[in-house]
Amino acid sequence: MLLNPNERIDDLVTRDLKIIQSGEVFSFSLDAVLLARFCTVPHAGRIADLCSGNGVIPILLTTRTKARITGVEIQERLWDMAVRSAALNGLADRIEFVCRDLREWARESAQQGAFDLVTVNPPYLPVPSGDLNANEHVAIARHEVKGTLEEIIAASARLVRPGGRLAMVHRPSRLIDIVTLLRKYRLEPKRIRFVHPRPSAEANMVLIESLRDGKPDLRLMPPLIVYNEKQQYTTELLEVFHGRATELRG
Amino acid sequence: MLLNPNERIDDLVTRDLKIIQSGEVFSFSLDAVLLARFCTVPHAGRIADLCSGNGVIPILLTTRTKARITGVEIQERLWDMAVRSAALNGLADRIEFVCRDLREWARESAQQGAFDLVTVNPPYLPVPSGDLNANEHVAIARHEVKGTLEEIIAASARLVRPGGRLAMVHRPSRLIDIVTLLRKYRLEPKRIRFVHPRPSAEANMVLIESLRDGKPDLRLMPPLIVYNEKQQYTTELLEVFHGRATELRG
Repeated sequence: MLLNPNERIDDLVTRDLKIIQSGEVFSFSLDAVLLARFCTVPHAGRIADLCSGNGVIPILLTTRTKARITGVEIQERLWDMAVRSAALNGLADRIEFVCRDLREWARESAQQGAFDLVTVNPPYLPVPSGDLNANEHVAIARHEVKGTLEEIIAASARLVRPGGRLAMVHRPSRLIDIVTLLRKYRLEPKRIRFVHPRPSAEANMVLIESLRDGKPDLRLMPPLIVYNEKQQYTTELLEVFHGRATELRG
Repeated sequence: MLLNPNERIDDLVTRDLKIIQSGEVFSFSLDAVLLARFCTVPHAGRIADLCSGNGVIPILLTTRTKARITGVEIQERLWDMAVRSAALNGLADRIEFVCRDLREWARESAQQGAFDLVTVNPPYLPVPSGDLNANEHVAIARHEVKGTLEEIIAASARLVRPGGRLAMVHRPSRLIDIVTLLRKYRLEPKRIRFVHPRPSAEANMVLIESLRDGKPDLRLMPPLIVYNEKQQYTTELLEVFHGRATELRG
């Protein structure tokens, strides 16, 4: 049986792809969809997706590449949903999901330095001094409980091959920490795109692509605007939602 | 006599301000005007403008603050134009121009740590391996002949008081170098605004404001677009050109 209680199948509106979700744990967000369209994908080769959640990024990436994709997710319940979603889409031969702590997996993997691309939609918030979200699944997805930003970047650096790429989505408020750490681990930022909810609003999301051992020379892509001044989705966002644009490189 | 041969008086279209320019040396650009509007100014106090050129930033800043402003320019010919422009506008009591190498001035100044705000529109290009621009004035304004990015940031850090600000305009291609150096000198970037020639174009200018000893937390301001899709100046840019907007904080 494919579905557990309280799970549902959502349409990814991209080439009939579907995904298993549950209101009890975690649902994928716009952030993950945009990252899957933004990153530069190898035509074939190997991709790792860290903090893979219910597997939305690997599933969407199959529309852009023939690469073999490994998704790594620490939470067994999410990992289990991701495995079933891959099967549901007939993609079990192209996507493998591993239920591991990405820090350990990167340290012990026989595939160190083997990946052409690493993608990651990490938790955005440091571990708070106060209470975490009472829902453990949500807390782990949102807060750096199972790995700090530096640990995630260090793990990515171990996995990516020389000349390979790391693509990340995060909050602009942490940009300086992010780019400082990326450079420290020789993952030179080469392409950044900011996402603004409206043309006159501050950015609330940032897409960053780094090149392993790249030389400093950043391209700052056009702003991606979600809603126009009439509160309607912009044409570019509608293309993404309706799966007509599988690339969003700017 | 106020004007030398081959000089002209240009209108700054802001409260009747004027500036002396010459096609032979260097004219101010949009970059300087945007920086003068973007930075957070103290109501009073002290401001230093490094790489001041013909003094456009100090002159424009007088419309936003009662602070005393010191402009530092290494090239005597530009410094001399700046002094005369201040006099032309009746601002000689509010703006002082110093003809010095900013590196020495910052090391020897009795005013170390005295400035509430430092502004700088530095040369954008590293010293090339090939030939420099044959016009020495232009070469010094464009290339890091008289101070590298790191030397300019280090000098700024000496001048600004704890809790004071540094505002800079530069090219996005060098963003990672810039923010890495700013953090190294305890000038934490707090506000960044990118300038795009058109809504769908990559950014070609970046405005960055840092807070001395600030804690990491960046605001990524709305994109500033120069031309709309009909190749006309955007409303926001027209406000700047016509001096109706003396602030451009985003």
